[in-house]
Amino acid sequence: MRAAKKLCEGRGISVAASATPEPGHGQVLIKVKTAGICGTDLHIYKWDEWSQNRVKPPLTIGHEFVGEICELGSGVNGLKAGQRVSAEGHITCGHCRYCKNGQGHICQTVKIIGVDRDGCFAEYICMPQENVWPVHESIPDRYAAVFDPLGNAMHTVMAQPVSMKTVLITGAGSIGLFAIPIAKENGASKVIVVEPSSLKKEIALKVGADEVLDPGDCDIRENILEMTDGRGPDVLLEMSGNVNSIRLGLDLLCNGGTASLLGIPPKEMPINLAEQVIFKGITIHGITGRRMYETWYQCESFLKKSGKLIDPIITHTVALEDIEKGFLLMEQNQAVKVLVEIN
Amino acid sequence: MRAAKKLCEGRGISVAASATPEPGHGQVLIKVKTAGICGTDLHIYKWDEWSQNRVKPPLTIGHEFVGEICELGSGVNGLKAGQRVSAEGHITCGHCRYCKNGQGHICQTVKIIGVDRDGCFAEYICMPQENVWPVHESIPDRYAAVFDPLGNAMHTVMAQPVSMKTVLITGAGSIGLFAIPIAKENGASKVIVVEPSSLKKEIALKVGADEVLDPGDCDIRENILEMTDGRGPDVLLEMSGNVNSIRLGLDLLCNGGTASLLGIPPKEMPINLAEQVIFKGITIHGITGRRMYETWYQCESFLKKSGKLIDPIITHTVALEDIEKGFLLMEQNQAVKVLVEIN
Amino acid sequence: MRAAKKLCEGRGISVAASATPEPGHGQVLIKVKTAGICGTDLHIYKWDEWSQNRVKPPLTIGHEFVGEICELGSGVNGLKAGQRVSAEGHITCGHCRYCKNGQGHICQTVKIIGVDRDGCFAEYICMPQENVWPVHESIPDRYAAVFDPLGNAMHTVMAQPVSMKTVLITGAGSIGLFAIPIAKENGASKVIVVEPSSLKKEIALKVGADEVLDPGDCDIRENILEMTDGRGPDVLLEMSGNVNSIRLGLDLLCNGGTASLLGIPPKEMPINLAEQVIFKGITIHGITGRRMYETWYQCESFLKKSGKLIDPIITHTVALEDIEKGFLLMEQNQAVKVLVEIN
Amino acid sequence: MRAAKKLCEGRGISVAASATPEPGHGQVLIKVKTAGICGTDLHIYKWDEWSQNRVKPPLTIGHEFVGEICELGSGVNGLKAGQRVSAEGHITCGHCRYCKNGQGHICQTVKIIGVDRDGCFAEYICMPQENVWPVHESIPDRYAAVFDPLGNAMHTVMAQPVSMKTVLITGAGSIGLFAIPIAKENGASKVIVVEPSSLKKEIALKVGADEVLDPGDCDIRENILEMTDGRGPDVLLEMSGNVNSIRLGLDLLCNGGTASLLGIPPKEMPINLAEQVIFKGITIHGITGRRMYETWYQCESFLKKSGKLIDPIITHTVALEDIEKGFLLMEQNQAVKVLVEIN
Repeated sequence: MRAAKKLCEGRGISVAASATPEPGHGQVLIKVKTAGICGTDLHIYKWDEWSQNRVKPPLTIGHEFVGEICELGSGVNGLKAGQRVSAEGHITCGHCRYCKNGQGHICQTVKIIGVDRDGCFAEYICMPQENVWPVHESIPDRYAAVFDPLGNAMHTVMAQPVSMKTVLITGAGSIGLFAIPIAKENGASKVIVVEPSSLKKEIALKVGADEVLDPGDCDIRENILEMTDGRGPDVLLEMSGNVNSIRLGLDLLCNGGTASLLGIPPKEMPINLAEQVIFKGITIHGITGRRMYETWYQCESFLKKSGKLIDPIITHTVALEDIEKGFLLMEQNQAVKVLVEIN
Repeated sequence: MRAAKKLCEGRGISVAASATPEPGHGQVLIKVKTAGICGTDLHIYKWDEWSQNRVKPPLTIGHEFVGEICELGSGVNGLKAGQRVSAEGHITCGHCRYCKNGQGHICQTVKIIGVDRDGCFAEYICMPQENVWPVHESIPDRYAAVFDPLGNAMHTVMAQPVSMKTVLITGAGSIGLFAIPIAKENGASKVIVVEPSSLKKEIALKVGADEVLDPGDCDIRENILEMTDGRGPDVLLEMSGNVNSIRLGLDLLCNGGTASLLGIPPKEMPINLAEQVIFKGITIHGITGRRMYETWYQCESFLKKSGKLIDPIITHTVALEDIEKGFLLMEQNQAVKVLVEIN
Repeated sequence: MRAAKKLCEGRGISVAASATPEPGHGQVLIKVKTAGICGTDLHIYKWDEWSQNRVKPPLTIGHEFVGEICELGSGVNGLKAGQRVSAEGHITCGHCRYCKNGQGHICQTVKIIGVDRDGCFAEYICMPQENVWPVHESIPDRYAAVFDPLGNAMHTVMAQPVSMKTVLITGAGSIGLFAIPIAKENGASKVIVVEPSSLKKEIALKVGADEVLDPGDCDIRENILEMTDGRGPDVLLEMSGNVNSIRLGLDLLCNGGTASLLGIPPKEMPINLAEQVIFKGITIHGITGRRMYETWYQCESFLKKSGKLIDPIITHTVALEDIEKGFLLMEQNQAVKVLVEIN
Repeated sequence: MRAAKKLCEGRGISVAASATPEPGHGQVLIKVKTAGICGTDLHIYKWDEWSQNRVKPPLTIGHEFVGEICELGSGVNGLKAGQRVSAEGHITCGHCRYCKNGQGHICQTVKIIGVDRDGCFAEYICMPQENVWPVHESIPDRYAAVFDPLGNAMHTVMAQPVSMKTVLITGAGSIGLFAIPIAKENGASKVIVVEPSSLKKEIALKVGADEVLDPGDCDIRENILEMTDGRGPDVLLEMSGNVNSIRLGLDLLCNGGTASLLGIPPKEMPINLAEQVIFKGITIHGITGRRMYETWYQCESFLKKSGKLIDPIITHTVALEDIEKGFLLMEQNQAVKVLVEIN
């Protein structure tokens, strides 16, 4: 089969022939139809420091997709060939305290497809039956392909109530952008977005942001305070990993507010715990992955009711053979979510 | 009347004559029987940077006490002369969103007795009727005098469930020590304390700590991991404000764990949000003051049932005229909670 | 002044002269502009069994209103004459454990305006300053007049998460109808309403219900199961107090679901706790009044953003002198929310 | 092998030869050491109406046990022969929304060992690997044998905070009795038990109840109100299924209180929703089974720390051949928890 692979260390991606996998016990073989390129894939493409430490070439990358089950391994039940499916890309141990308690997203020995084992930028992928998510017939492929990053956004938004709260989103990459309609549809009274890219700012408005600000704006703090009756936002959804944005968000957050952090900041950054956290009595949630599988049910519900709201975020579609073009568009900040048509 | 006052800037405290206050509308005059010296009072005594910025001499300091109502201002109802009372020392505005929503502890215009207005190291103090806490007859004065710091400990412990959880307490000053029996009585399966002072370590064991470790111990991380089946503690109660202790606590906290921060660290400190917070999916609560008045009801319940557990924490009692002796004992780490007998 | 009063026992209401009240200490005098007629007022008009036991004529009734402060009693601060205000009609003791813990809505000695003391169907009313709610300038009088019943609906909806949940509302009186846009705006994936009145069914659709069913429909159970993928609704909001509706709702509620009960059923009714509650692992919340004042902030936020959604629910406006006409329209099921123009 | 079987309809139990089961794929064969007799087993012994509708003889009954893995089926990982284990007796589908969301205890197609398929009153039993619970070495067999009913008690107590709350337990069968030390160890300020049996009342005191009352006592309401400062208990744990006890508990529960119902009442019973639930603003939780596997971790923690507290509840031990003696002792209210020694 054809697959987009990291064949060796260093920048780049190669579309090459690869052995078609065979489903082991309890696994299914899925023919991939459409996949999505994630920021993580771009890190691997660029071969940054994190990738160098984590990824072992050769490896087929990619972890967001929709496809069709074409073969069942032994012992699989409740699934059948021909079924249209997406899948949770975190393969958990299933045995540890976290997995046994419905917290598989923080299993300590998790393996991620496209990072620790072959991924979905390929004609076929094998997945454990537990990870397979049958896609509701009303959800088209272009949305089903992005269940994974939509789930990151959903997990972050749902980590605290947003009903009738003012929400500040720092960073409008694809996950930050997904978070906008999710927050609005779930009752946020105002969604304020901080983002420098003009393309992303434009899309943020299209998907429902009430206010979009540039982090370089010298009056940004005053502006956000004014938009929030002088109190600061009730909720911070940190999607940038940017040190200045995190500081801005924690500074502005109102007393008793909640910050959910998904963006990955550099190794260490200075935090003023006294002023930013303790005296204000705020709560901070570290967010990783998706809750298995509560987040998936929530995403299904959102996509059935409001899927079309995410259309502006999916800016490009490329063929598997042209996948590098997708990476370059993303690197140049000319694309947000790029889909890859595979079969 | 006699009062312990900060008469001017610089180190020191003076017991001097002071005008007896008169209760205004909605206030009561309380004859103070016993007060407690808090770490905050020691900061003011030593005139550290925080005190220099916040405190305006002349000022009677002190904010933990028990006494007896001796006069009612106009418009007071539900209280009567002769009643034994303690009081919440945070005077809130009563009008803001926080006050209206039962979150007075994070009111943005709070005034604290003994810091922003005259306090309780005096023969008499006036308090708004809303702040007055009638003391149950079964609770002796020595416990009633420390409702305030006990409340800080209670608020911190109750910020997350501790039932059948392993709890790490960093810092065993009086509030950290109070947190030990509170956590144990409320179901913590194991309480591990990190503290350098030998006096405080000894008291920690007396009040129920399962394990007490020295932060200087080179194997401290391995030891705590071993005590927690290799996972790290479920709950961190940070009572030291010490940079190394906060780092240690966040590093060790298990995936999905909860950290409640009460200790006030220096202005800024480096945090590795990715490794310490986000990938682990932990939750951090900033804790300040006491919930009004849920925390007070909890403290009352605790003291009625288990008050004697805190006896080892109250190490000294001094007369008002000898109050400086109390400060010096605390400064030299020879005392923990020092009571001041006033009337 | 003129006031709509219950002058004596028995059916009826009289518009009559009444002494203008004077604001006591801590009270404000409010010139009433617009009031709303509640189902409770209709009970008092009809002089049903509950009214006979609770209401002591002569009494000015009415408890939903907007007006303008025209005089301040002594000791009032933070309010000023000319301010446009609504008010919480539950006068709580302020001293009990519930009041002290932010649970004033379940204070055991609550007094309700228009039920236990003179109400708002009058040119003037006195209210304690704590109960006064300044109305945001962007909220018109017709919405501000119904903060109280909107708050009942808000309290009921917010008693559990409705985000991406299917919600069954039994009973579409004004509170049930208010709950529809509140649930939809806060992320409910589907709102199903059960109501017999054709007027109310029509309004339910106008304010956003996805499905409206007649309780007499013999296939109602099958229909609701079908609308909820065979599982039953996730959330039941019981607004009717009708025995059959409560049974229907509890029977249909999915495993692990949540029921919030606001409607007041007859004295006792049979419940199958084993089948309807225990084996399904459901949670039932009894709902009364409004959370003080969290619910008010939520209503303010809702009205600022989405106030116009409630327009179809306000079906009639009458002058104070014609107030009986409003009662008769409601009694005949020809009106839902009737406003009374007073000044 | 030998097994205690329900061979035919009608009262009774027979110890008879039975085919030794063989572990299928993903299953383990367990040699049963010690089992516990549950109230449910007694219902089946007596062949009550519920049993007649649910149980299909011939069937080996029993669902609480500890044993040793003696054979692994294919595809089992993370377990090994010789391991000492207990097991969750609810066999869930693993595929439904509840199972996928960590709510397997309310899976709609659950099968229970000893009720729907062969149980543990036998020399050997097969269990799916997911259900197997390795027993910590510090927990002796006599405690490990009762993980299941201890888990029912734990689930009920943990359904709401009990820290510093007054708790009323109605019904002191084995589960009600287990709930006493669980509530006390987790911070309940006072545990009041209502139970008619003198044996169970005596044991309730031994395991830590603060007050034990007879439901027939004519002053029981006044007594409980007095024990709770006139407010009524904060928490009701209903373990009896008795109509009068449920009514008593709901009547007495304080405003804002929480009731967790585990006992199974007769088909329908009258509830005064207005007075008992709505006006008081209480919350009712229906409790079934054990949370998989959070409850098991909690029970492990409890047994490691405080196992000996349950000693008085385990009143008898019988050999498998004498199992009927156990049933008769229970039926005559002369025993509470009876263990069956099998291997």
